[in-house]
Amino acid sequence: MSKEEMIREMKKRVCAANLKLPEYGLVTLTWGNVAEVNREIGVIVIKPSGVPYETMTPEDMVVTDLEGNVLEKESLRPSSDLPTDVVLFREFPEIIGITHTHSVQGVAWAQAGRDVPVYGTTHADNFYGCIPCTRDLTQEEVEEAYEENTGKVIVETFRDRKIDPIAVPGVLVRNHGTFSWGNSAMKSVEVGKVIETVCEMAERTENLRRQAGEPIPQHYLDKHYYRKHGKNAYYGQK
Amino acid sequence: MSKEEMIREMKKRVCAANLKLPEYGLVTLTWGNVAEVNREIGVIVIKPSGVPYETMTPEDMVVTDLEGNVLEKESLRPSSDLPTDVVLFREFPEIIGITHTHSVQGVAWAQAGRDVPVYGTTHADNFYGCIPCTRDLTQEEVEEAYEENTGKVIVETFRDRKIDPIAVPGVLVRNHGTFSWGNSAMKSVEVGKVIETVCEMAERTENLRRQAGEPIPQHYLDKHYYRKHGKNAYYGQK
Amino acid sequence: MSKEEMIREMKKRVCAANLKLPEYGLVTLTWGNVAEVNREIGVIVIKPSGVPYETMTPEDMVVTDLEGNVLEKESLRPSSDLPTDVVLFREFPEIIGITHTHSVQGVAWAQAGRDVPVYGTTHADNFYGCIPCTRDLTQEEVEEAYEENTGKVIVETFRDRKIDPIAVPGVLVRNHGTFSWGNSAMKSVEVGKVIETVCEMAERTENLRRQAGEPIPQHYLDKHYYRKHGKNAYYGQK
Amino acid sequence: MSKEEMIREMKKRVCAANLKLPEYGLVTLTWGNVAEVNREIGVIVIKPSGVPYETMTPEDMVVTDLEGNVLEKESLRPSSDLPTDVVLFREFPEIIGITHTHSVQGVAWAQAGRDVPVYGTTHADNFYGCIPCTRDLTQEEVEEAYEENTGKVIVETFRDRKIDPIAVPGVLVRNHGTFSWGNSAMKSVEVGKVIETVCEMAERTENLRRQAGEPIPQHYLDKHYYRKHGKNAYYGQK
Repeated sequence: MSKEEMIREMKKRVCAANLKLPEYGLVTLTWGNVAEVNREIGVIVIKPSGVPYETMTPEDMVVTDLEGNVLEKESLRPSSDLPTDVVLFREFPEIIGITHTHSVQGVAWAQAGRDVPVYGTTHADNFYGCIPCTRDLTQEEVEEAYEENTGKVIVETFRDRKIDPIAVPGVLVRNHGTFSWGNSAMKSVEVGKVIETVCEMAERTENLRRQAGEPIPQHYLDKHYYRKHGKNAYYGQK
Repeated sequence: MSKEEMIREMKKRVCAANLKLPEYGLVTLTWGNVAEVNREIGVIVIKPSGVPYETMTPEDMVVTDLEGNVLEKESLRPSSDLPTDVVLFREFPEIIGITHTHSVQGVAWAQAGRDVPVYGTTHADNFYGCIPCTRDLTQEEVEEAYEENTGKVIVETFRDRKIDPIAVPGVLVRNHGTFSWGNSAMKSVEVGKVIETVCEMAERTENLRRQAGEPIPQHYLDKHYYRKHGKNAYYGQK
Repeated sequence: MSKEEMIREMKKRVCAANLKLPEYGLVTLTWGNVAEVNREIGVIVIKPSGVPYETMTPEDMVVTDLEGNVLEKESLRPSSDLPTDVVLFREFPEIIGITHTHSVQGVAWAQAGRDVPVYGTTHADNFYGCIPCTRDLTQEEVEEAYEENTGKVIVETFRDRKIDPIAVPGVLVRNHGTFSWGNSAMKSVEVGKVIETVCEMAERTENLRRQAGEPIPQHYLDKHYYRKHGKNAYYGQK
Repeated sequence: MSKEEMIREMKKRVCAANLKLPEYGLVTLTWGNVAEVNREIGVIVIKPSGVPYETMTPEDMVVTDLEGNVLEKESLRPSSDLPTDVVLFREFPEIIGITHTHSVQGVAWAQAGRDVPVYGTTHADNFYGCIPCTRDLTQEEVEEAYEENTGKVIVETFRDRKIDPIAVPGVLVRNHGTFSWGNSAMKSVEVGKVIETVCEMAERTENLRRQAGEPIPQHYLDKHYYRKHGKNAYYGQK
């Protein structure tokens, strides 16, 4: 396949993944975006900034290089969160797709500044450990290069806390929203939906416990995560 | 009807029941599944594992024997929860259909590790007593045969607490989700929807009471359950 | 118009009003029902018991006399709540339509056993005072004539507390659900939707106040209710 | 364009904006309305009072002068909230469209009598500061000219607290509901949707914090607001 054809296919996939955001109830108005990288041909494809989902087409998708420089002349502006994705695609070399949302349940946890504890097997099926919440950026970090530093503070969170971004494919950016990722644009949207669902379950769980909750036993976490992931997984089709 | 025709009809019913799960808002992504048994011909039909609801057809349904061994050569893999259903179909001989979900409200109660108290007549119309929550499985039970032992811990809950699985047609598996059942695949899905609704009502009731709530009087429970169930029932068409 | 034609029109209106229940999100499965009375011709038309909304037609509606005796030979069984409606149509002579639901927000307040306080103008636009919650029925009342006594306890609530059923067109039956009414079947459904909305607003209001809330000032209640009701109303078309 | 053509276009825009209210989940039944002003030709176009959204057409929109006097002979009655809009259009000369709703989350905060604190960047993207809640109107204000005085108390809130209605394009009217505005009818509806979303996020945030929350740091508020607004904005298309 030629590079042009590959980019055309990426645009279709990225557009389809972006259109899943409203279908899954993850976005309000034009908020949220999905991006996909192809490191071999040096290309990122991302949703344009502030364009309504109702009328979005694959042709509207924005093509940039791996530093986020727009490559096509007649391009719309890329999502303003692109510099965050550039950092994540560079620092987490295994991930192909990234989704960013301001989904309600995820934002509530981000605004509370809290990691989402592993309260059940729905969480454990998808995340091997809590969904971490980053620290706030400093005033300097915000003023200097806000979106790029958002990516850096995500990376810092995973490095400092020794979290594997493959086993924990998403994060809450404090006071802001969610970033999730996976081995395709669509997969990153599905993880975004998982975060939203798990966040609502966790809030209701605490409400029903009326006290700080305990996470599930470790052996549950191991079982549920590894029956869906890794070489001994037995969920889904071969 | 030949055995082949009976299986073909079962596949249609099981597929239709599975498609009710997203319609009723009980599933996220590919989570959840429905199964039906025919003990005379020794067959269980169940949803395949990890297949999207949008494209699911009756032909995708998986046929197994009563021990859960796949019977058709070209079969997809069955839902990973099949061994749980095998135990329930064996130990609860009156039930024909089983539904498993990770529905949000049900999971919240399961993660809180709490029985759902009988707070009103909506509950009493459908469950003659609280919706029980099982204990956690031990590490040994999880490692040995997780899904089968999930079935066993459900059965243990009903046996030890002397609960009749016909009068109480569902359960919360601690930290996990819901199982519900009935005299058809579709009926088990409807009970799943009842659990979800009753769980939300109960959480809101407690929120409004701001204290541990009292269940409804026993005579209410008797009246509402028995006007819908048993030989003196007068709800619905004859 | 002949009596037959009048009944045919009633069946159409009652069916259309019943179909609004799922559209407004007020029912789960087959729960809930709407009835309409015509006192001149001595007829009540009501939803049949336990019939799914998806396939319901005007012909399915059940015709009874003012005591609730079924009038047509080939009739389905009427909703089991009919005896409640018979009492309300008899004791509240100004009302024409009645809706009964197990809608989630209304049930939560009913299960909490609480009147819904007048917390805002949305409430005041529609109810001149709190939405009352009845007492529980006694064991004797439940065993003797449950549905009829449900109607009687509603009437008792309005009589004893000197509430005008025109100014307060609905009630929570303790531990059970909502009844609402109006000058047509459709109007009673709309009031059911109002109750559901106002109940959710009130729960969230208390949650945000984190303490027992105060109702709005009396002059607000007067203004909002009377700008929509009575001879000086100026909301809506003439 | 002739004045007649301009009014015809306004009617289309105002009708389309009103129809977004049910699509965005901001209204129940016939509640809520949107208006647009053209100060050059001295015209306000607003939704008629109490008309169902399902059948609404541009021709139903009501045309008034800047004092709210109906200009067309065959007109329906304007929304009863028109006198509020008249005050806002007069006192806030930069705004073109106004939306009023009784949306659930917004009403909950209005009924709690609380400003919505800036808990995150979703809020900061759209409002440069908390969403203010007005005081209650006095009995005299309600009896004298309720809707006009509602407009005046909104203006008073912004004047006394030195809030810029461009930077903070909406308000909660205590015990009542939301008003939002913008440089078009449609934009005011979008701000109404933002208020609803931000209100839900904020309630859940407090629930998760279990204590009075702290707003986000000031440098976050500055960054997020100004990357979307003002001469250095870089969100959206040029």
